[in-house]
Amino acid sequence: MRGPVGTRMRELSREDLKDIAAGAALLGTGGGGNPYLGRLVVEGVLTSGRRIRVAEADDLDCDTPVAAMFGLGAPTVGIEKIRSGTEALTALRALERYVGRPFQAIAPIEMGGSNSMIPLALGALTDLPVLDLDGMGRAFPEVQMVTYSVYGIPAGPMAVADERGNVAVMEARDDRFMERMARAVTVVQGGHADAVGYPATAARFWAAGIPGTLTLAASIGRVLRRARPVLPALLPLVRGGIVFEGKISDLNRRTVGGFTRGEAILTGTGTDGGQTARLVFQNENLGLFVGERPVVTVPDLITLLDYESSAPLTTEVLRYGFRVRVLAMPCHDLWRSPAALAVAGPRAFGYDFDFEPWDAFASAGRMPDDT
Amino acid sequence: MRGPVGTRMRELSREDLKDIAAGAALLGTGGGGNPYLGRLVVEGVLTSGRRIRVAEADDLDCDTPVAAMFGLGAPTVGIEKIRSGTEALTALRALERYVGRPFQAIAPIEMGGSNSMIPLALGALTDLPVLDLDGMGRAFPEVQMVTYSVYGIPAGPMAVADERGNVAVMEARDDRFMERMARAVTVVQGGHADAVGYPATAARFWAAGIPGTLTLAASIGRVLRRARPVLPALLPLVRGGIVFEGKISDLNRRTVGGFTRGEAILTGTGTDGGQTARLVFQNENLGLFVGERPVVTVPDLITLLDYESSAPLTTEVLRYGFRVRVLAMPCHDLWRSPAALAVAGPRAFGYDFDFEPWDAFASAGRMPDDT
Repeated sequence: MRGPVGTRMRELSREDLKDIAAGAALLGTGGGGNPYLGRLVVEGVLTSGRRIRVAEADDLDCDTPVAAMFGLGAPTVGIEKIRSGTEALTALRALERYVGRPFQAIAPIEMGGSNSMIPLALGALTDLPVLDLDGMGRAFPEVQMVTYSVYGIPAGPMAVADERGNVAVMEARDDRFMERMARAVTVVQGGHADAVGYPATAARFWAAGIPGTLTLAASIGRVLRRARPVLPALLPLVRGGIVFEGKISDLNRRTVGGFTRGEAILTGTGTDGGQTARLVFQNENLGLFVGERPVVTVPDLITLLDYESSAPLTTEVLRYGFRVRVLAMPCHDLWRSPAALAVAGPRAFGYDFDFEPWDAFASAGRMPDDT
Repeated sequence: MRGPVGTRMRELSREDLKDIAAGAALLGTGGGGNPYLGRLVVEGVLTSGRRIRVAEADDLDCDTPVAAMFGLGAPTVGIEKIRSGTEALTALRALERYVGRPFQAIAPIEMGGSNSMIPLALGALTDLPVLDLDGMGRAFPEVQMVTYSVYGIPAGPMAVADERGNVAVMEARDDRFMERMARAVTVVQGGHADAVGYPATAARFWAAGIPGTLTLAASIGRVLRRARPVLPALLPLVRGGIVFEGKISDLNRRTVGGFTRGEAILTGTGTDGGQTARLVFQNENLGLFVGERPVVTVPDLITLLDYESSAPLTTEVLRYGFRVRVLAMPCHDLWRSPAALAVAGPRAFGYDFDFEPWDAFASAGRMPDDT
């Protein structure tokens, strides 16, 4: 990213946008929406001469009213359903009407392919700065699976809007119930919608969010674009390791209840030859299993990388025959508290075992050949 | 109802409430929620010393802000799911917050069992008058099937709330889509919820609503309570006739997609001995068929009366073996315009024939023995 332009706040270049989209696709663990489509949305907004400003903690007053913006729905639908570009603005204006005042900054909710991009598009449309943080440091499929929610910023009131102006502003007794209402509205709205919620002050966002993740995504994107080979530069940056290498020999992916759910079977190649691994996903990759043994699970990060290019692969583009590496990365410490694990650990996704941090399973430092 | 008390507006007595509940159950054509439970809600509110005022057209300024209030969901669920008594108030306050001003009167949306009662309960809770009209002159299952909607009062913004404080305020590009969003939220909220919507001035409500239906329901209820035999007094009041007499010999009733759907087979008795009729319902009774011939269909009114007592029977209490009479009544003229029939005529419910006003089918004036 470039330095200050005019104000103290940094302004993003088109190259920054490409890097953030690529980096967020890697942090998005297979979900968060298609990064290419997300970038097109932002670039479409920017052609009309607008700017995107990124705010650090000391760029804004502590009591600046902030709302988080994100897309909601199944990535398999998101890749098919055309955006009008107005849905986020519809949601923002409805929420402002409900809370009775305008917001002065936007926060991303997750670093995922399109969900890292569309808050930037909304920032450009409204000329509001976007905070350099997010509520996951990765991507997760459900509304309550956000550090904002875990650390004291309720999701509601939250507005969900589609491309034809249909909008619902919702309040719920807890964020799990908000997830259920928002998901039902999203399904009626065609399976994909834009949401604006988690209204709070900038100070609370800095306290409850994972800081610096737009910058981290941009750094990852730069490595993916420039470094050859990629992995020696990438792995230290994300504290990651390659935990499996194989071909997709079976793929079961369906769009159900507003999510993309399924699993991929990986037949090992290279040093994993003769082994089989199973990757389970609900929009995002939830766990990698060898036999019944969980190798990596939520909230730690699992991302498939294309074997040749090391480009991150999102769940909606996976196909039989893809040759991949499985990249594991430790989650941010905010996810490792008991309160956070109750929301986004293995048991929150229906598994009957406790979270084991990935470092404990893996032989860290393993570094396969890279093209 | 009694005359003016204190103000020009009439205040309802407990006897009025019973009569309105009974009369609205008859006008509700099998739906509109259980009348007994609706009355309990109002009486529960009234124990704390509150009053219910009914406003005629000249009791309110033309620009008085009014919202319509109603329960949403399947009657089979409504009869099981306990109300907290706060859901309507939650919806009202959320809508007021969204539109930025308080409402000064309440309108019923339909004359159905509980849906005639709960706007009165909200009026008592808030000390707001309730308009002597409704948007159907009967009951219908869906949000867009309201003369308010047909004649220029959009359903949105509309708030839907449950008994635990969960609420969604929605705007939609049209009222059919509002129905889909509101239904989805209602299903997530447990299958039954309270709604407040159709915000407009009193003048627009008088123009788009069916006037005098609270008074009509009270008159019907008085007849059901006092007249013996009932039918000779009832039929002229509702311009109705008995079109079939029989026993419920088969009943198929299920709760699906937020509705109570099904059909009852009636085996004829008395002068209808040897014939079989089929009554189809979606919350409300939609059509009575003998063979393939529609005898009465929406928007005309069809209500089952208990053979012994002539008490109206709602769809959620029907049982095998009930002996019944089928009462047909012509709908209000506001339902007979092409625009209205497009919303609530037979084709709106999936039938492949046009509406024929009931009088054309039936031998009017038929008057069976009454107990």
